[in-house]
Amino acid sequence: MRIDIVTLFPEIFPGPLGESIIGRAAARKLVRINAVDLRNYTDDARGTVDDKPYGGGPGMLMKVEPLVKAVEDLRKPGSMVILTSPRGERFSQKAARELAKKEHLIMIAGHYEGVDERAIELAVDREYSLGDFVLTSGNLAAMVMADAVVRLLPGVLGSDESSVDESHSSGLLEYPQYTRPPEFRGRMVPEVLLSGDHGRVDAWRQAQSERLTRERRPDLWEHYLKTMEAGSK
Amino acid sequence: MRIDIVTLFPEIFPGPLGESIIGRAAARKLVRINAVDLRNYTDDARGTVDDKPYGGGPGMLMKVEPLVKAVEDLRKPGSMVILTSPRGERFSQKAARELAKKEHLIMIAGHYEGVDERAIELAVDREYSLGDFVLTSGNLAAMVMADAVVRLLPGVLGSDESSVDESHSSGLLEYPQYTRPPEFRGRMVPEVLLSGDHGRVDAWRQAQSERLTRERRPDLWEHYLKTMEAGSK
Repeated sequence: MRIDIVTLFPEIFPGPLGESIIGRAAARKLVRINAVDLRNYTDDARGTVDDKPYGGGPGMLMKVEPLVKAVEDLRKPGSMVILTSPRGERFSQKAARELAKKEHLIMIAGHYEGVDERAIELAVDREYSLGDFVLTSGNLAAMVMADAVVRLLPGVLGSDESSVDESHSSGLLEYPQYTRPPEFRGRMVPEVLLSGDHGRVDAWRQAQSERLTRERRPDLWEHYLKTMEAGSK
Repeated sequence: MRIDIVTLFPEIFPGPLGESIIGRAAARKLVRINAVDLRNYTDDARGTVDDKPYGGGPGMLMKVEPLVKAVEDLRKPGSMVILTSPRGERFSQKAARELAKKEHLIMIAGHYEGVDERAIELAVDREYSLGDFVLTSGNLAAMVMADAVVRLLPGVLGSDESSVDESHSSGLLEYPQYTRPPEFRGRMVPEVLLSGDHGRVDAWRQAQSERLTRERRPDLWEHYLKTMEAGSK
């Protein structure tokens, strides 16, 4: 996979994406992450990428021409163009799995103040939002999305790590976990986890996951119950 | 504000947080963002921070002792300790506003495989999740949360930028925006935005925001309608 990130801050890439699991994936050529300076696609000497909104209002907008030119230059058959945007669909594990099937992603790191709507109409396939909070720019959002996608590419995670994802896809929050020592400041590891009885361990974990999901994320719990019901029919 | 980020990858900080708006806020001493190497709080020569889960299962867990020691070393009266965790409450603009009132945040960049539950009980005040997707680590999540919080600190955004946030807090998605040129490849800026009639511009934008929110985010739309109803009583 190749990921082109169109940005006003190419110097911050790869940054966190150059380390650890994603960095190793790049070193092994499982992915190529490439920062593209939007200013390369401007015509004027000053490299103007933004301008005031028509109709008034605060902040500056990203202009239509440089964005459309950048995408036209980078796009190939099979490319998918993504804009990070507070207006977009919520980014999710399902979205990450879909994007992981593409050969080429072009991610435009939007700025909060916005993007000329015509650039979205002409050049963008999908708008994704990380969540209902405001960031100073879309660069961190693009990094997060790239991280979530790249870890799903074949060969990026070891077999031990990738099985973790399977358990997460149960739709429940994770059960409490414990590692050595068995006692820390009077707090003990639950006895069942030391029992060696896999059946009891699994039952305890399932019950804990269900309890936590019910308490903390009623939305996920509702969804889980519906899925279970549909599955048992 | 001071933000200590407890991490296994101190070298990736400040990274994106050293640039642009957040970088300028740090240069102006409005915030100090400090990466803390969790390995500084280990006892053994190898700096062991993780171990296998009791009861079996994939992946490694972050051990309890180094995390508790790190927090004990860093915590002061008024500090708030946050763990990035897929099990946490969804991070939101409301959460960012609350955190922005604190003088000192300690953010623990969790690893997906998990953290010994006793470390959470003993040292963590809040668990936050960016959303329902899986990342290779909590480092990017901590950066995102820090970005969302720091931009809300007094003086970080210019008066022009900060007013953008006010409009977002309407609970609706943003209306389409346009900037020069008035025509691009046959696509025109909507006439109303060129009219100079502020009343018409506002009405058009409100209608567009409502339409987009209804179409794309029924959950926000429901919430908006309830808020409006409560407000008119």
